[in-house]
Amino acid sequence: MTSFPLPPGSTIGVLGGGQLGRMLSLAAARLGFDVVILDPEKDSPAGRVSAHQIVTRYDDPAGLKTLGAASDVITFEFENVPADRVAQLVELGCAVAPGPRALAVAQDRAEEKTFLNAIGAPTVAFAAVDSEESLVAALAQIGVPSLLKTRRDGYDGKGQHWIEHLNEARGAWAALGGRPAILEAAADFVRELSVIAARGRDGEIACYPLSENHHEGGVLRRTVAPARVTETVRDHAEAIAAKILTGLDYVGVIGVELFELADGRLLVNEIAPRVHNTGHWTQDGCEVDQFEQHIRAIAGWPLGPTDPLAHVEMLNLLGEEAHEWRKLAGEPETRLHLYGKGEARPGRKMGHVNRLTKLG
Amino acid sequence: MTSFPLPPGSTIGVLGGGQLGRMLSLAAARLGFDVVILDPEKDSPAGRVSAHQIVTRYDDPAGLKTLGAASDVITFEFENVPADRVAQLVELGCAVAPGPRALAVAQDRAEEKTFLNAIGAPTVAFAAVDSEESLVAALAQIGVPSLLKTRRDGYDGKGQHWIEHLNEARGAWAALGGRPAILEAAADFVRELSVIAARGRDGEIACYPLSENHHEGGVLRRTVAPARVTETVRDHAEAIAAKILTGLDYVGVIGVELFELADGRLLVNEIAPRVHNTGHWTQDGCEVDQFEQHIRAIAGWPLGPTDPLAHVEMLNLLGEEAHEWRKLAGEPETRLHLYGKGEARPGRKMGHVNRLTKLG
Repeated sequence: MTSFPLPPGSTIGVLGGGQLGRMLSLAAARLGFDVVILDPEKDSPAGRVSAHQIVTRYDDPAGLKTLGAASDVITFEFENVPADRVAQLVELGCAVAPGPRALAVAQDRAEEKTFLNAIGAPTVAFAAVDSEESLVAALAQIGVPSLLKTRRDGYDGKGQHWIEHLNEARGAWAALGGRPAILEAAADFVRELSVIAARGRDGEIACYPLSENHHEGGVLRRTVAPARVTETVRDHAEAIAAKILTGLDYVGVIGVELFELADGRLLVNEIAPRVHNTGHWTQDGCEVDQFEQHIRAIAGWPLGPTDPLAHVEMLNLLGEEAHEWRKLAGEPETRLHLYGKGEARPGRKMGHVNRLTKLG
Repeated sequence: MTSFPLPPGSTIGVLGGGQLGRMLSLAAARLGFDVVILDPEKDSPAGRVSAHQIVTRYDDPAGLKTLGAASDVITFEFENVPADRVAQLVELGCAVAPGPRALAVAQDRAEEKTFLNAIGAPTVAFAAVDSEESLVAALAQIGVPSLLKTRRDGYDGKGQHWIEHLNEARGAWAALGGRPAILEAAADFVRELSVIAARGRDGEIACYPLSENHHEGGVLRRTVAPARVTETVRDHAEAIAAKILTGLDYVGVIGVELFELADGRLLVNEIAPRVHNTGHWTQDGCEVDQFEQHIRAIAGWPLGPTDPLAHVEMLNLLGEEAHEWRKLAGEPETRLHLYGKGEARPGRKMGHVNRLTKLG
């Protein structure tokens, strides 16, 4: 059994070697930890800055066993880790954070919204859908426009289909490939906000200031933080985050995406049980960023401060936008973060910039 | 021939795998570069966070050749790289920054002070010493108290011997093992300051605010930055740094250690042609720290801003002081940096903390 807090020199295992794993690894290194990355790709972005790599599929039992043996605590850069594999790690005696319950809830949109409503965190109206007939019934209940989403495995706007008319059930059901889904009412929101929060092993909770997020084609384009919000909205968002973290007995950083309605009410859009793209602004806007905060939490360390030091506009660099590095590097207010990915495929997250201005 | 600026994805070679190499590697990763570390120790602090390791002696010709072939530009975490080995790299067509001239000057205390005086950067009076007889002559010229130092290979107060009386020449010469030396007049200084400066490939120069430094037993204990100095002192320090950088046709970050005299004059104590312990405060006190600045400079990128964001007290964690990580991690104003070193031998630099307070 791992004993916490983990001393420096301990090894942190990370499932996934993309940019989030890379930035977690850099943060862990600052605190004197070693990192082992499990990823199917050799020399993944995270693997290239980590002490050890295990090159297997995410669900390879032998690879996971090796990861468990090498790690004092294991965490994830993405939530779609098969639940039975996480269970395998836990059975092997591995400390896994966040835990299986948080992953299970975040992996299934119906489970997620059911959990959220149960703890008093409001969401849009929704209904689970597992056949064309149940979609027809759900449409009658939820109305249109509404959004049909796969229950599992969707990200960055994939696995989603808008329904504008009640007679579109058959086409929509076919478009999602007949997979288990949920139908969500359209949220009449004025802004998308998010709160990045953390919970330590002792139950301590810390929230970063809210950010305002702008998506394009289902992909995050731009985050502005701290968002201009009323004290009521901020308090409400933090209360929601705290309920979620406590309800899941969560350890680590979580991203909570929110819809702000015209009357100031907040609905939870979704939760991401990991460091989150809308928290990248903390790298240059806070003393302790979300990556170090996550490492602190899972290692059983005290959480760091979350006060903003600057006003930040975060822009994702998608595909060939990263080829602008020379221009961006010359902008004094722009901090450049690149992920070490090779091919700049269209839409691929290649890096981001944080543009800083004084608070005020 | 390497063409600059280096695009992200290029490989930066670093001679030396200690904490400075580690922090350079983390900074390079943020900008999308890969790093290859050459160090005699496998899994050195820097090697464990870098894409590639070459495990050979620093002066191994085959190892250096491998490093040259793998790297788009090569840099150093310490200045005592044999000059003929650097020449070998340059002959192989490697871009080396800072260049052989800067290393040669910094490696030899007599060369260093001769260069400094020649460009109009004042130092204490000194004389080269290569025998007991020349030490007697030097003592007659410089007087006592004075400091006998080896010309080469000293660091952290090693290879130094104070002389209090004119009749101590024989003992002092023996204490240094009869190695080529210089005798330096004692500096009647009121403070030790330093300026961390950078010069880009286009000749652009940027200076961080001055820091005030406190040594114990020849080892840096504490840095406070920005130091409270008059505008005259600041301008003078920056002018000295600029003369040194231009005089050496320097590319990269340099540390310039200064003595501040009672009348406000500055003398250069020594220069370090690399990132410097008295610049660690920039990690949490500036948007772009000295490590990213060095990577930017050697990669041919524009230099980043050097304005201070906070007032910082940097404390080195020596030996078992690093065992206090648990307490330090719980201090909200304290940013902890640990180097991933195993054994906490007495006096060994294991990490540092930056304690932040608001500017003003």
